[in-house]
Amino acid sequence: MQEALAFTVHHSDPHTQARIGTLTTPHGVIQTPTFVTVGTQATVKAIAPDDLARLGVQILIANTYHLHLRPGEEVIRELGGLHRFMGWPGPIMTDSGGFQVFSLGAGIEHGVGKIGIFPEEAERGGHLRPARQGQSLVRVDEEGVSFRSHLDGSPQRFTPESVIDMQRALGPDIMLVLDECTSPLHDYEYTRRALERTHRWADRALVRFRETGRQAKRPKAQGLYGIVQGGAFRDLREQSARFISGRDFDGIAIGGSLGASKTEMHEVLDWTIPLLPAEKPRHLLGIGAIPDIFEVVRRGVDTFDCVAPTRLARLGALLVRDELDYKLTITNARFERDSAPIDANCDCYTCQNFSRAYLHHLFNAKEILAMRLATIHNVHFLSRLMVQIRQAVAEGQLDALKREWR
Amino acid sequence: MQEALAFTVHHSDPHTQARIGTLTTPHGVIQTPTFVTVGTQATVKAIAPDDLARLGVQILIANTYHLHLRPGEEVIRELGGLHRFMGWPGPIMTDSGGFQVFSLGAGIEHGVGKIGIFPEEAERGGHLRPARQGQSLVRVDEEGVSFRSHLDGSPQRFTPESVIDMQRALGPDIMLVLDECTSPLHDYEYTRRALERTHRWADRALVRFRETGRQAKRPKAQGLYGIVQGGAFRDLREQSARFISGRDFDGIAIGGSLGASKTEMHEVLDWTIPLLPAEKPRHLLGIGAIPDIFEVVRRGVDTFDCVAPTRLARLGALLVRDELDYKLTITNARFERDSAPIDANCDCYTCQNFSRAYLHHLFNAKEILAMRLATIHNVHFLSRLMVQIRQAVAEGQLDALKREWR
Repeated sequence: MQEALAFTVHHSDPHTQARIGTLTTPHGVIQTPTFVTVGTQATVKAIAPDDLARLGVQILIANTYHLHLRPGEEVIRELGGLHRFMGWPGPIMTDSGGFQVFSLGAGIEHGVGKIGIFPEEAERGGHLRPARQGQSLVRVDEEGVSFRSHLDGSPQRFTPESVIDMQRALGPDIMLVLDECTSPLHDYEYTRRALERTHRWADRALVRFRETGRQAKRPKAQGLYGIVQGGAFRDLREQSARFISGRDFDGIAIGGSLGASKTEMHEVLDWTIPLLPAEKPRHLLGIGAIPDIFEVVRRGVDTFDCVAPTRLARLGALLVRDELDYKLTITNARFERDSAPIDANCDCYTCQNFSRAYLHHLFNAKEILAMRLATIHNVHFLSRLMVQIRQAVAEGQLDALKREWR
Repeated sequence: MQEALAFTVHHSDPHTQARIGTLTTPHGVIQTPTFVTVGTQATVKAIAPDDLARLGVQILIANTYHLHLRPGEEVIRELGGLHRFMGWPGPIMTDSGGFQVFSLGAGIEHGVGKIGIFPEEAERGGHLRPARQGQSLVRVDEEGVSFRSHLDGSPQRFTPESVIDMQRALGPDIMLVLDECTSPLHDYEYTRRALERTHRWADRALVRFRETGRQAKRPKAQGLYGIVQGGAFRDLREQSARFISGRDFDGIAIGGSLGASKTEMHEVLDWTIPLLPAEKPRHLLGIGAIPDIFEVVRRGVDTFDCVAPTRLARLGALLVRDELDYKLTITNARFERDSAPIDANCDCYTCQNFSRAYLHHLFNAKEILAMRLATIHNVHFLSRLMVQIRQAVAEGQLDALKREWR
C-alpha cells in the first residue's frame, strides 16, 4: 500500500531530545516541530481559511466526535470530504473522539465536568442522567463505548472500527485510533485494565484501517496514528509506548491524562518518548501553553495541539512575550486609550492595523470583530514562536531561546 | 473655507429622477448612487477593513450616539479619529444620534420599544424609569434633549452644538445635524412643533459647524448635511425641504418617519426631492431593502444606509436574486447537503470557497465564522447590485433592470 505520510528528521539537537523534520502529507508538507491549530467543528473558531493561509498555519485538527454528531460524517463525505467542506486545502488531522466521549463521562463520574455538566446541573437540565454509584453516562465494554450526545442526549455508540469508518468518510490526512481516556482520578487497577483494552482496540483499528484502505476504489491517502495511554503510571506508560511502537502505525500520539501537574506531564514524556521509534512522527494531544511548548519540544514532540490560543483570544487574552503568563488582558481599563498595537514587534494583520484601545473597545462593546482580530493575533503568535523554535533547534540554541522567553 | 466635499452629477436619467455622480471626500471618491454600509460602533459587525476593501464598499456610517456612550468621542479623538481608530482609510459619515435618542424615547412613550425596553421590563430592570402619562425617558426642550444611556441608565444631554463638537472629535468626512425624529404615532400638531424646533437646531448646528471649522488649528475637512423631517405630512415635508435647501449645507439627508407603509415612503420622497437643489448630494437615512433600493434611486437619492444587509446576514438570511424577498434562509434543513454556493454567479469570497451545506453547518453549530462569511456575501451583494444600478442609470435602463429583478 502506498504510504500516505512520509516523515524525515533533518536534525536532532545534541543537548535535548528536540528535533526538526518534515512531515509530508497528501495535502502539503509540514515543518516540525509545529503547533496544530484546533478546528473542532470544521472551522477554526472566528477565522477563515484565507486568514489561516496568511498566518502561516501548517495543519489543523478537527474532531470526529463533534463532526459525527453535527453535521455527520456522511454529509461531509458527500460534500467532498473535510478539506473541501471547510475550504482548507492544507493538511488536516482528526482526533478520534475518544477524549470527548470519556471526558464527558469522567466529568459525570467524578463531578469534575470538562464540558461544564455536573451531576446536579445534568439533573436539572433533564436530558442527561446524573451519575450514581457505578452508573455513568459513558459505558465502556470490550467492543466499544456507549454514551449520549451532549447536543440532544441521543444514544451513541463508538467502536474502534466505526471510528475508522467515520474518519475514512471525513477524509483527513491523519487519523487517530479510538482510545479510552482515563481520568487522573482513576486508580492504577482501572487504568491498567483500560489500557489493555485500548491496546486491543488499537489492533482492531489497524485491521479496519487496512481493510478500508484496500476496499476503497480510490484509496484515500490517509495515515493512522496509534495513541499511547497509561495515565500517570510509569510502568503503564512504558508498556503502552512499547506496544504502540511495535505496531504498524504511521505516527504515534501521546494522549490521556498527562498527570495532575506540569512536573508529572514532563515525567510522562520522559518515560514515553525514549521508547518510541525515532523515525515516526510524534503528536502530543491537548498541550499548547507557552511554557509547555518549550518543554514538549525539548523532549522530542513533533506536533501538538491545544484549544488555548484560540479560546484565550475569544476571552480577550492576547498572547505577548512580555506579560505575566504571556497574556495581555485587553479588557483591562488601562488599555482604554492605549494607541500601541498589542505587540509592536508583531506583523500580524491585527497589530499592523489596530490599537489596543480599539480592541479594548471591540471587546467592551461585544463586537464580533473582536474575536477575529484577537484570534488572528494569537494564531500568528504561535506560528511565529514555532518558526523561532525550529530555528533555535537547528542551531542548537533551544535552551537559550527558552531562557530568553523567561 | 475650503470645501470638504465636492459633488458632481454626471448623468440624469430622462425617464426617472435617478442620477449618477461622484462625491469627493477627504478620504476618497464615491460613485453614486451607492449603499452606505453601517458600522455603528466603529466596526461593520463581523467583518474587518480588509474585507471591506475587497467587497467594493465605498463609504461607512458610524453612530454618534453609540460612540459617545462607548468609548467616548474624546478617546477616539486621542487615537487619531475614527478612520485611524477603526483602521478604515475610506470615507465615513456619522449619524447625529438623533434617531437613537428619539427612537428609544418613542418606544417608551408609545410602548413600541425599538431597543426592546418596554415599560414593564424597564421597571423590572431597575435602571430605566418607565413612562407614565406625560413622562418619557427622553425630554426635549428648546435647547436640546435629555435622555438616559441604554447601557447604564446614566443621564445624558445632547444639543445641536454638542453633537457638532462630538463629530468634530470623531472626525468623519460627513457629519449630520441633530434632529428630532418624531414617531409615526405623533400627531400633526406635535410633528409641526418638533419640525420647527429641528429647523432652529439646524441653524444652531451650522453656526457651531462654522465656528469649529475656523477655530481648528488644522481645520479638518468635514462636510455637514442638514436633515429634512416632517413625518408623513406633505406640507411639513415640503416646508422642511425648502428650509434645509435654503441653508448652506454640504448635502441633504432625509430622515425620520418615512410613513407607515412603502407607499407613504415613496410619497415622502416624491414630495421632498423635487424641492431639493440638484447640485447637492442627497442621503436617505435607514432604507436598504432590495425593492426599496430601486424605488429610492429612481426618485433621485444618491446615498442611503440600512442595517438590514448586515443584520440579516447574522441571522442567516443570505441575499440572492431568485428567492422570495431576496432571502435564502440558510438554516433551512433543505440546505444540509447542498453543495452549491449561496449564488453560483457571485464572486465573493464566501461563494467562491464554501457550499450552502457548510454555511448551514456553521449556523447550526453557532460558529462565529458563520457571521463573517454571511456578512461578506450580503455586503458584496449590495456592492454588486449598486454597480449594476449605476450602469443601468447611465444607460437609461433603470426600470428595465428593476423589472428583471422582479
